[in-house]
Order: sequence, then C-alpha cells, then structure tokens
Amino acid sequence: MQLQTNGILFLLPNLLDEGNTVDYLQPRVKEVVRNINNYIGETEKNIRSFVKKILPEKIQGELSIELLNEHNAEGDLKKLIAPLQRGYDIGLLSDAGMPCLADPGYQIVRLCHERGITVVPLAGPSSIVLTLVASGFTGQQFTFHGYLPYDKIVRQKRIKQMEVDASVKNYTQLFMEAPYRNNQLLKELLEICDSKTVLCAGIALTSSKEKIITQSIAQWKKMAIDLHKIPVVFAIGR
Amino acid sequence: MQLQTNGILFLLPNLLDEGNTVDYLQPRVKEVVRNINNYIGETEKNIRSFVKKILPEKIQGELSIELLNEHNAEGDLKKLIAPLQRGYDIGLLSDAGMPCLADPGYQIVRLCHERGITVVPLAGPSSIVLTLVASGFTGQQFTFHGYLPYDKIVRQKRIKQMEVDASVKNYTQLFMEAPYRNNQLLKELLEICDSKTVLCAGIALTSSKEKIITQSIAQWKKMAIDLHKIPVVFAIGR
Repeated sequence: MQLQTNGILFLLPNLLDEGNTVDYLQPRVKEVVRNINNYIGETEKNIRSFVKKILPEKIQGELSIELLNEHNAEGDLKKLIAPLQRGYDIGLLSDAGMPCLADPGYQIVRLCHERGITVVPLAGPSSIVLTLVASGFTGQQFTFHGYLPYDKIVRQKRIKQMEVDASVKNYTQLFMEAPYRNNQLLKELLEICDSKTVLCAGIALTSSKEKIITQSIAQWKKMAIDLHKIPVVFAIGR
Repeated sequence: MQLQTNGILFLLPNLLDEGNTVDYLQPRVKEVVRNINNYIGETEKNIRSFVKKILPEKIQGELSIELLNEHNAEGDLKKLIAPLQRGYDIGLLSDAGMPCLADPGYQIVRLCHERGITVVPLAGPSSIVLTLVASGFTGQQFTFHGYLPYDKIVRQKRIKQMEVDASVKNYTQLFMEAPYRNNQLLKELLEICDSKTVLCAGIALTSSKEKIITQSIAQWKKMAIDLHKIPVVFAIGR
C-alpha cells in the first residue's frame, strides 16, 4: 500500500557569471530554494555558493547534496532520486545556466518520468538561448550540437556540414568548445569556412564583458579577438 | 560628424501564461521597462498588457509601439530601428516567451548588428527550452524545427526523419503546431511513429494546468489527452 506522495523534481536555473546578483533570476527560484534541502548538481562547491547567493540565511549544514556527472552508473541515479520517493522535493542544478541543457541532468529527469514523479522546470539564463536570440540568425529552426568532435577530420567535416545546413536549410547551427580551446576553434573556423559565411560568438554573456559579435568570416579575419578561457557559444547562420 | 550615441536593443522575455505574475521574470526586466518607452512587438495589445503587468505605474500614453510580423517589408524594418540611431533604447518583445525564438524578431537584431548597435538579451521563459529540459531527453544535442510543414506528405516525411535523427544520432527533436491543430498532429504522430519511439509533450507550461508527459508511442495510444487550443511543444527523443 502506497501512502506516501512523491516529492517534486525542480529544475533550477543557475547564474551564468559570478558577478550576477539574484536579480538575474526569477524570484520563484528563491521560493523553491527556501523550501528545499535536497540538491543534485555537478559540484558541491557550486551548489553551496548558489544557495548562499540566492538565500544567504539558509543553513548550509542542513543541505543534502548529491553529485551527478558523466561518471555516475545507472544504479547511482536511482539512489539520487530516492528522496523523491520518500516525499522530499529535490532541486536539480547545473554549474551554470539551465540544468539538462548541455549537461547530464536529463538522465535524472528521465528516471522521474518513468516513476511518475512530477518534474517542474523553472526558466532562467542559458548562454545557448541568449546567443541564439541575440545572433540575428533565425530562431524559427535551429540545431545545437554541443561540443564539436575532438577528432580533427570528423570535426572539420561537421563544420562543413553546419555551413551547408545553415545556408541551404536555414537552420541556425549552435555549438561550443572547452573554453581553453576557443581560440583554436575560432582559428579553424576562419580557415575552413567560406568567407561569406556568417559567424556569431556569444561571449561572456550576462557578465560585464558581454559581447555578441555577428560578422562574415571575411570580417572576422580582420579582427583580433582573444577568447581564451572565456565562456563562448558559437553560431553559424544564413 | 556623428555625435549621437546609438541606443541599445534589449531583447525582453514575455510571460508564457496570463496567470503568471512578475515573479516569473528576472527583476532586471522591470528596470529595463522603467527606462524604455519604445517597443517593437507582434501585437500592440500584448505589448501594452506586458508593460502594465511589469510596471503598472508606467504611463501608457508615453509608449511608442511599432509592430513586427511576417508582413513587414525590409524598408519597414529600417524605420523600426530608427529611434536606436537617434539614441533611444528599444525593447523587442514576443507575444509569449523569448523574442527571436520561433518568432520573426531576429531580422531586427540582424539589422542592429549590421549597424553596430548593441543588442542585450535578457533571459526568460521559453516553452521550447522548458520542454527540452523537462523532457528527460538529452539536451546535449537537439534540433528545433518550428512549425511542421503543412503539406501532408512533406510533414509525414519530416516526422519519419525526426524519428531517425532522435534514435540514430541522439539529437532530441523539438517541434510545434498551431494550437487548434494539436490534436490532429498528435493523432498523426501516434499513427506514423514506431510504437517504441518516445514522445514528450510540454503542455500549458508555467500555467496551473502545466503537464509534461514523456511516454512511448505505445503508452500514448492508451491515453486520452485533449490538446485542442492549448500551447504545446512536442519532442521526440531516444
């Protein structure tokens, strides 16, 4: 006999930049944090700083924090959602931006659907979405590729395919790179892409150094821009 | 000699549901609305209700509102951004959710980039993003197709292709339909798709009737769900 009601899995947006205040998040996030002690995220330090920034009066010692990253086995995931089945709500967080967007959190969400646990997503910042809307490319159809393949030949083939899908199909193409390889990727894009192809970079979004550049490859070649270790989302569009 | 500094184009998120309060938007939106009298959007009525809800004390008679929809010619667009070149900031709005995401606003943004006008996007709700993160499908790579093609044969071919791209490439496939055709599309999906294909519907998101259903086509066939005239984003995933 099942008497207990399941908890709710809340998908909580995190800030994109350390300099952002709570004014960058909808106030409902604060209300959820007030009521929840159980969190799942990528790193404990980031979860604690998030809670501290959103609600400084929250007692950190009462937080129960579980980590989710590419190393969790399936059995681990089942343990992570156990509090939900005992009636406790859980907040799922990413280190930056929306959980389950370019992060592994979706596996937790999938398990919840399979067990009839309610999932409530709260909207917030995403560097992918902000780059898309501010790129000047169509947002009526688009593809996000995540991190480009590491293998050089596969990656270059992907870049050529993205150019075609942007120019012929008019699907905006979004992608990322590990920040320490940004300059290398930019160099590669300038070498491989047609000079008329239009490239956008959403750089350090929401920070005081935010910059959104949309220019043809020909124009990019004339600029000197250092993207090393800066969060960037790239887009190719028509 | 150019003495005047250009204004800024702010991309402002709108609410997804009439029942939502300002607590569903980051407080920075209110600050932008406080300082801006020029708006571009899809319908005047919706822009006025947005401003009224965000900042009731704002004097409606002082607002300057320009409309942007699929009927504007290119010359119209240039006129729309003229206040920016005279130094006035403009707020670009969608009728619901993020501007430039599944709406024509991106053309304004593109013109601004071409003229060196700064574009500042503010994050907010998007039914597409909320459906993606709450679907339980991967958000590490995905495609948004907008509205499916009207022609039956083209549309059914697209649906089959989405099934392949979801299952073989593991790119989550997102798409929409005009709300009065939702039931028809759902019926079509249940007929065409493999019974093991997993379909998600993000229904009436952020409203009191919000529902996120992720089930196999076989399970969907056993449910009776009325989506008529309700805002829905669909997703097919692995």
